[in-house]
Amino acid sequence: MLPFARLTIIGLGLIGSSVARAVRAQMPSVRIIGHDADPVVRARSVALGIYDDVTDTAGASVIDADLVILCVPVGAMGSVAAEFAADLPADAIVSDVGSCKQSVVDALTAVLPTATIIPAHPVAGTEKSGPDAGFSTLFKGRWCILTPPEHAPEAAVERLRSFWQQLGADVEIMDARHHDMVLAVTSHLPHLIAYTIVGTADDLEGVTQSEVIKYSAGGFRDFTRIAASDPVMWRDVFLSNKDAVLEMLQRFSEDLSVLQRAIRYDKGDELEALFARTRNIRRSIVEQGQDDDAPDFGRKH
Amino acid sequence: MLPFARLTIIGLGLIGSSVARAVRAQMPSVRIIGHDADPVVRARSVALGIYDDVTDTAGASVIDADLVILCVPVGAMGSVAAEFAADLPADAIVSDVGSCKQSVVDALTAVLPTATIIPAHPVAGTEKSGPDAGFSTLFKGRWCILTPPEHAPEAAVERLRSFWQQLGADVEIMDARHHDMVLAVTSHLPHLIAYTIVGTADDLEGVTQSEVIKYSAGGFRDFTRIAASDPVMWRDVFLSNKDAVLEMLQRFSEDLSVLQRAIRYDKGDELEALFARTRNIRRSIVEQGQDDDAPDFGRKH
Repeated sequence: MLPFARLTIIGLGLIGSSVARAVRAQMPSVRIIGHDADPVVRARSVALGIYDDVTDTAGASVIDADLVILCVPVGAMGSVAAEFAADLPADAIVSDVGSCKQSVVDALTAVLPTATIIPAHPVAGTEKSGPDAGFSTLFKGRWCILTPPEHAPEAAVERLRSFWQQLGADVEIMDARHHDMVLAVTSHLPHLIAYTIVGTADDLEGVTQSEVIKYSAGGFRDFTRIAASDPVMWRDVFLSNKDAVLEMLQRFSEDLSVLQRAIRYDKGDELEALFARTRNIRRSIVEQGQDDDAPDFGRKH
Repeated sequence: MLPFARLTIIGLGLIGSSVARAVRAQMPSVRIIGHDADPVVRARSVALGIYDDVTDTAGASVIDADLVILCVPVGAMGSVAAEFAADLPADAIVSDVGSCKQSVVDALTAVLPTATIIPAHPVAGTEKSGPDAGFSTLFKGRWCILTPPEHAPEAAVERLRSFWQQLGADVEIMDARHHDMVLAVTSHLPHLIAYTIVGTADDLEGVTQSEVIKYSAGGFRDFTRIAASDPVMWRDVFLSNKDAVLEMLQRFSEDLSVLQRAIRYDKGDELEALFARTRNIRRSIVEQGQDDDAPDFGRKH
């Protein structure tokens, strides 16, 4: 049973093209129309041959769609929706893949007041960007969080749940505000910290950039991966989930001050107690299949 | 040409046992004696069969050695050296693998005032610990930094350089204090931040630990890897390299405050400019062979 027959994807980068590839692999009879604001990305998407058609306008892409998935930076959701609002079929479901959800549902509802909007967030990705970075197994074994508004039709939610499950994801339903708090700590704060430390290292006057790069295997290189993620996407995430990000940042800063003080005053027991505790979280993540147990992420040695 | 014929390794965990395995693979005729303070580790090391002998005391392990490598937490270097000081041959070279160097050279010089001490730091490792975690290719393509004291004999430095090169490492000579500043930013600060954020996430009352684990693929799981590193080793690193770590932490905190303010006041341009800049550092690290270009560290998808 296919939950949807005519899919439109708007935004054909890492996530959008991964959705398209996964649908091609798992639901080959679904018709997929793509659109991207960037003509270079459109041309490349045509060349990749994973879409039935790639349209020049957002409006043309949604005609006849029964599911429209917006895979654009969260700050662009409202303006993209405005572009296709007049062409959207009345019974189409509009969804997205954005990393924050309250701001997205607010933006989409304002522009599409009568549409069925079911926001979604597949918690998956890599640090790569663009139409060539996608792959069909990106969502396998990852969680996809749906944040339906209060009066969303149950049947629409179930169709979207089925869609993501067929792409290999586990689906969870969550309140949009709670989603934004959970992701602030599991995704947004880590990215913010990674961007910061890479910037700090780049600015040092006593240590050269060449040294930072040469000796990055001591731990620093781990942070550079997520700090290589798409700048516009992440700019929008921080601005759109401001309250939760600032709240988590405040807690993190307090905890860092405690550690700073423990180092300054030689409180080795406090340090060791924290370091032993954090090991257990890693173990749980590995046990629950959310990361590989291979040492060093399985990097080649 | 073998730089050393009779190697003693004290501390038989991840790094010590990796040195032993690498020597077995690259210099099979070298005799390797091991010692560890923990009888369980000694028994396991005997069972692994990678040492010619595993002794019950540190003193017994160094008799006849021409190279002694200390692979213990940096805070334990002095006391371990005191244990074998009376048995150390006059012409043996004493080295180590510690993550900070000035405190190690100070501690060793105090206990072994007449010995030839050439501290070393192979910038390599994984988050795993113990005698089973080691492997022979750990140092391949990684940097090993030697920090010889001012009057160290040149010939001894060259023998140790040759030793590490034969294990596959690239060798760099550096002043101990400069080493400690470089590693504070490329290794110690990243570990401190990773430990902190994992602790912060563990303490939240509004988000459950189960949610943190489920949605960790959004970025958080990357931090849990290095936050699973050996607690005692890292306690010692922070206390032994206190000044440089506190200095880097101060810079990081200032930079984080700037980003925090940019988010609070919607300064998207500032965020985007930093995020674009940090991408370039990642690119350089990959280009210089210090990390894999495979998306998501090459994790299976």
